[in-house]
Amino acid sequence: MKTLAVVAFAAAVVTLSAPASAQFAKPEDAIKYRQSALFVMGQHFGRLGAMANGRIPFDAKAAQENADVVAEMAKLPWAAFGAGTDKGAPTKALPEIWTQQAKFKEHSDKLEAETVKLAAAAKTGNLDNLKTAFGSAANSCKACHDNYRAK
Amino acid sequence: MKTLAVVAFAAAVVTLSAPASAQFAKPEDAIKYRQSALFVMGQHFGRLGAMANGRIPFDAKAAQENADVVAEMAKLPWAAFGAGTDKGAPTKALPEIWTQQAKFKEHSDKLEAETVKLAAAAKTGNLDNLKTAFGSAANSCKACHDNYRAK
Repeated sequence: MKTLAVVAFAAAVVTLSAPASAQFAKPEDAIKYRQSALFVMGQHFGRLGAMANGRIPFDAKAAQENADVVAEMAKLPWAAFGAGTDKGAPTKALPEIWTQQAKFKEHSDKLEAETVKLAAAAKTGNLDNLKTAFGSAANSCKACHDNYRAK
Repeated sequence: MKTLAVVAFAAAVVTLSAPASAQFAKPEDAIKYRQSALFVMGQHFGRLGAMANGRIPFDAKAAQENADVVAEMAKLPWAAFGAGTDKGAPTKALPEIWTQQAKFKEHSDKLEAETVKLAAAAKTGNLDNLKTAFGSAANSCKACHDNYRAK
């Protein structure tokens, strides 16, 4: 039993300390994954922006659906910025993502929090609430892009 | 009031009858969107497959998280197969998607249903349940790919 416990513990340590990139078979999969998740998020975010900016009519149900997808998608990309995924496929990710990991995490945490607020705002069915939350979330996207994405 | 009601009704009809592709600015966005959503789904599905097939240890919590993402992602790609999105960017989507829309929808509905079952199976924390549900969902992926995706 002691041996089994040690083996189980060792396995747990490996799991806990494995870089997030270990979830991906190769760096290009991680790069494609984070780009894919961000693209899907961006499409739904763009629809909310079109409503917030009056380019399309406000549709409370559609806004809620889009905001829910944005909040779900906002959780995904970050695990795909693991060690060794700075190259392997075309990417605009700047080296600062890996040299300033704590700061980068602050940005991604902020975006996740903003998208949770965005989904809550959309749920109220009030366009002004949506506009406010959309603006904050958009600023969060921009701040991260300005610092960590090549032009 | 009567005029307003007519306008409102006309707007509702336009919304209901607008092709799903109207959500996308251009066909290549729809193509990239569905490919992105399917890629993200595939990555999480692959992790479940690795557990189901014993290539990595079964981790009930990770299985549940991955299955939940799969079930969320499985809802997304289909709106991006709207009219006019058969070309505009490299795509393996076969013309039958648009000539056999009802049959294609049967496949996508089936996948959505299978992924809901997969998430429920993962939630039980039982590997055998996961294996069974994973097998059914994988068959659903394959059936659609065999019929509607170029080799």
